[in-house]
Amino acid sequence: MKIYDTEGFPNPARVRIALAEKGALDRVAFIPVDVMGGEHRTEAFRQKNPDAVVPCLELDDGSHISQCTAITEYIDGTFDGPSLMGSGPKERARIAMMNLRAESGLLNAVGDYFHHATPGLGPDLETDQCPEWGTRRKAVAAQTMSYLDDVLAQNDYLAGDAFSVADITAFAGLAFADFAKVEIPAGLENLQAWRAKVAARPSVAG
Amino acid sequence: MKIYDTEGFPNPARVRIALAEKGALDRVAFIPVDVMGGEHRTEAFRQKNPDAVVPCLELDDGSHISQCTAITEYIDGTFDGPSLMGSGPKERARIAMMNLRAESGLLNAVGDYFHHATPGLGPDLETDQCPEWGTRRKAVAAQTMSYLDDVLAQNDYLAGDAFSVADITAFAGLAFADFAKVEIPAGLENLQAWRAKVAARPSVAG
Repeated sequence: MKIYDTEGFPNPARVRIALAEKGALDRVAFIPVDVMGGEHRTEAFRQKNPDAVVPCLELDDGSHISQCTAITEYIDGTFDGPSLMGSGPKERARIAMMNLRAESGLLNAVGDYFHHATPGLGPDLETDQCPEWGTRRKAVAAQTMSYLDDVLAQNDYLAGDAFSVADITAFAGLAFADFAKVEIPAGLENLQAWRAKVAARPSVAG
Repeated sequence: MKIYDTEGFPNPARVRIALAEKGALDRVAFIPVDVMGGEHRTEAFRQKNPDAVVPCLELDDGSHISQCTAITEYIDGTFDGPSLMGSGPKERARIAMMNLRAESGLLNAVGDYFHHATPGLGPDLETDQCPEWGTRRKAVAAQTMSYLDDVLAQNDYLAGDAFSVADITAFAGLAFADFAKVEIPAGLENLQAWRAKVAARPSVAG
């Protein structure tokens, strides 16, 4: 299988961490996509992923899966190793819920701020900005960080006792926040301790 | 188990259809939430669902699951009946991808238009509108309808040969579009035929 992505970008990082957790990084060929050159918006790439974003998984049958959570679902079900999506309806539902909260409230909120209220990827790519929206989303990201800190006062990881895809999503969200200069509110000690713990995992630290 | 929701609203409809597909509507007690009166934003409701939206599932152990996809994950794994989330990594990933596209590009896009660029639920509730953003999202909803029409030229349902949660999400998105007066572009015959087919399912037609 192949993954079309751009190394170092937030969403590609989610899938690479998921693969590393499964010990499966060497099972995938990574094909670089020149996002800064607009390759993700070409007709050739849209044939693979109509969302026109990275990453995109290409299966050996030639079909494509995009959206990080869907790609992680595939990885989790295909490779051995610790479960990232959970097992049993209650655990799976809790992980799905926390992953969605981390995605919409943190990672995507930071992304909206970056692409709409800052120069983002530059004038050639940021052709449809809505600064007012981006500014609101920055505030949502900070609120979500505080919420996640509350959750981590109760649990070791975002969806309970075990590391899951929700932790990957939130961790990538904080990395994107650093890059976009969205500060973590002061005093979120649970979130900072959790972040250090995740950063030390072999899948992240390498 | 209990579901806190508001009958007739788009996201509650998703969960009710999922339960009906499983023949499990009578296994749940529905607790009405007075969204028009702002009950979903009270501290008491936020204790159940920090997202401050309906629906919210309460399990018998007192824990809560929100986000429709997560609730449907719980329903699908708990009750017998046709699979809504799929089985096997490839099918599950494809359904997750199409469900996310239907959610972000159609249902949530219509919701953003409704809440930001129309009077929405009225001035007492719509206190943070960003009309420019809402207008853009209306265009995204129309683009997504065209994309779904292309998908349905190839498949009977959005994620392949079988009905899934992705169809539920898109169907609720079109119902919300009707309510919010977001028109379906002319000529989308595959989408209209699929819509009629889904509307005739016992889970929807009753």
